Parts: sequence; structure tokens; C-alpha cells
Amino acid sequence: MKRKAAGEGTPPAICTPLVGKTKSEIVDELAGILAKKPDMLEWRADFFQDVGNPAEVLAIADLITGTARNVPIIFTIRSSREGGQPIPLSDGEVIALCAAVCNHTDIEYIDCELSNAPENIVFLREIAHKNAKKVIASFHQYEYTPTREFLLHKLEEVARYGLDVAKIAVMPCSMEDVVTLLGVLVEANKKMSIPIIVVAMGQYGVVTRMVGGIFGSALTFAVGHSASAPGQVPIDDLRMVLNSIERAMK
Amino acid sequence: MKRKAAGEGTPPAICTPLVGKTKSEIVDELAGILAKKPDMLEWRADFFQDVGNPAEVLAIADLITGTARNVPIIFTIRSSREGGQPIPLSDGEVIALCAAVCNHTDIEYIDCELSNAPENIVFLREIAHKNAKKVIASFHQYEYTPTREFLLHKLEEVARYGLDVAKIAVMPCSMEDVVTLLGVLVEANKKMSIPIIVVAMGQYGVVTRMVGGIFGSALTFAVGHSASAPGQVPIDDLRMVLNSIERAMK
Repeated sequence: MKRKAAGEGTPPAICTPLVGKTKSEIVDELAGILAKKPDMLEWRADFFQDVGNPAEVLAIADLITGTARNVPIIFTIRSSREGGQPIPLSDGEVIALCAAVCNHTDIEYIDCELSNAPENIVFLREIAHKNAKKVIASFHQYEYTPTREFLLHKLEEVARYGLDVAKIAVMPCSMEDVVTLLGVLVEANKKMSIPIIVVAMGQYGVVTRMVGGIFGSALTFAVGHSASAPGQVPIDDLRMVLNSIERAMK
Repeated sequence: MKRKAAGEGTPPAICTPLVGKTKSEIVDELAGILAKKPDMLEWRADFFQDVGNPAEVLAIADLITGTARNVPIIFTIRSSREGGQPIPLSDGEVIALCAAVCNHTDIEYIDCELSNAPENIVFLREIAHKNAKKVIASFHQYEYTPTREFLLHKLEEVARYGLDVAKIAVMPCSMEDVVTLLGVLVEANKKMSIPIIVVAMGQYGVVTRMVGGIFGSALTFAVGHSASAPGQVPIDDLRMVLNSIERAMK
């Protein structure tokens, strides 16, 4: 994933989520999604019914990287407090599982929520970097859009931790919230040197999935098979829009 | 042209400019453009070489409305101080020509720059409304993006004059300027009850031509045959993007 300069028409990376509950669902979903040629995949392992079994998780991770080949994978366990599925693991156990994925699989990116304890974040950063993996530090708010100052602070926190990619995804309650978010994105992009991902969810936020790249978002999530968050656009439609933007901005 | 609520995915009106220099160029351009089914047409009469001859202008206006039938027409003489072509008419003569178009043709919308003398604006408003025409009051800045406060003031000036549609088109020098402009659009849309058109020109502004409608812009300009301002997108491409947005926001 490359940092995206604001004001350029080149498309951001398109990432599709994998949300299968079972191995067979994941296998089917993966085949369908890879046919649509996403730039990246995010395995939302919190949807996987055996997420509590580390050996199973590592086996599925190998299956995904083996099938996806050169398509980089993000390993994500979204906590239920940030909009993910309820799972039978504590925060500490999630960090341990992420560390195992770093140590034992070819997955390239690990999502780590900024709401984790600082010592856990630093621990995961060390394990990830030792294995040449990158940490996407994320913040999600499914109910509303926090203030500009709060969101800028969250993004800058990622750089202070020495992590590799900063992501915020929030729910706009109006188009003003969307404007706030785009302003945060442009401002953070000027100040920070790592890739930034900014997403507004839901109906008002759809536009950010399409044009966020122009404002400096490095990646946009699109539906390959099933959505993992409200407002995601089908990958074929999104690619068509991104291509139109690129042509128009040349 | 209908007022557009912010946050809805329904497309804004698509308007294509007519920029032919001669009658025969305008006839050809019109045929090509109408085949692409724009919602509206803007006749940029400042491009017309006989703009100094009122009888010729009225004849071409009749030709355009007769050919375009139900497609509403905007009659525009963009002054050279706001980015238009140099023409041999004074401001007063332009107002008189606009008044003649109101009195003697079926053209529905008349563009009137807010930089005109207040008495001229009020005079044209009276003639237009007597003929059941609508005035689009416009402000253009091809060099930079004025402040949020200045732009909000310009838009609100239109309502104070009792005019029908408010338009601003400015040149962003960064994506921050585009964010400013989208914020102005959302804010003005909340405060005002008439249709608002907001355009950011040039490369940075391309995105506003595509997604301005979601932020509350009632109309977007697209290229049918030739562009009339920098950054305009081909109508087919624009329509595809607007349809994708509408689908995604349903």
C-alpha cells in the first residue's frame, strides 16, 4: 500500500473484505473475489467461527495467502466495541493471535485498534516489524463523527507509535460530517508521511469511498462478495468510477 | 432546475455548454450535444462572433430553443473579467441584450453576474420575472478560491436580490480549497431555499463536478462537444459516475 498524495487522480488501492464464517465459505468467497482482481484483501477473522482456535486461524491464513498469491492480505480482528463480531477472545488473546499470524504466516498487514492498551500496541509493533509485517493502526466509530481535532489526534497517534498505516472509519450523520472528515484527511496527509486510510461509512459516506483517494486516502474498501461495513460499493462499480476520475484528472 | 438536498444520491441536472462561434458551428454542436441527452444547455453567447448584433442573437436563441424543444436553456454572456470571451459590448449593453432575450425568446434561464451594478441586476430581475424567466446569479473566480466567509456572502447576496438560482465557480489551488468549497455548499444549502450551483474548476475541482450533487449542488456542467471551463468531464462519463453514486446511495 502506497501513500497517496492529495490532488492526484491515480486510484487508491481497492481492498475487498473476506467475511466467511467457515473454511468452506471463505474458500468460495475467495474464489469469487479474486476473479474481480482487488488490489488487496482484508480477512475479517472476527467473522470466522473458529477464531478462538489459533491453529485453525493460522491454517486459514495459509490457505488465503496461498490462494491469493501476490494480492497482499490484511489480517483483522475487529473488536465488538469498534463494530466487529462478538468473539470468545480477550484483547490480550487477540494480540497474541495477531503476533502468531506475524510469526507464522505470509500475511503482510495486521490491523491493530488504537483502543488497545499501549503496551499491547508496542508489543505487536515489535513482533510485526521483526517479521517485516506492517501494522495498520485503526480507529472506528460506528455511531457518529468525532471532532476534527479528535480525529487528527488519532491519526497522529499512529505516527507517534511508529506504526505503518493510519486508518479511521467513522459514521457521518450529515454531509457536514463528511466535509469535516475530508478536511481531516487533507490536513493529516500534509503533516504525516505514512499512508492514511479515511472512510466515512453509511449512506452519507458513500462518496468518500469513491473520491477519498483524491483527498489523500491510500485505500478504499469495496464489496467483492459481502460487505463488512455499511456503505461499501461493489468493486466493479467502484473501479469504473475510479477510472473515470483518473481519466478526468489527466 | 430543482433545489438539491444534501445527502441524497439523486443526480443533479447535467448541463452542457454550447460554445460555437458561428451559426453553423452552433447548429452542428447542438445536434451532437442533444444526442447525448443533457438535462439542460447553456448557450455561452460570448463565444458567438455576432454577439454584438441583437437581432442575430435573438435569431440564434430561437433556433436553439426550437431545436432543443423541452431541454431548458441558460443564456449566458460571461464577461471577460469572470473568464468569458472578449466581446464588443459594455455591461449595460449586455444587460439590455439579456432583457431582449427575456422579452422575445423562449429561453428559460438568464445568467447574471453578481459583479454587475445593483441597479442592472434589479432591472434584469424585473424583466425576467415579468416574462416568467429565472435568473441565475453567478460569481466566478478563475485564479483562486476566496474564503469561506466571502463565498457564503456571495451566495446569500443572491437570495437578498430575490434571484432564482445562485452559482459560484472558483479555481481551487489545493484539495483544502475543494474542502472549503464543499463546506460552503453544505452550509449555504442549509440556510437558503433556492437552487445552488457550486463548481470547483481545474484538475483539483474535477471531483466537485462528479459529487457536488451529494453536497447540495443542483447542477453540474459536462462536456457535450467542447468544454467551456477547465475540468469539465465528458457527459457520458459523468452520467456513468452519477448513476453509480445513485445506485450506491439507495
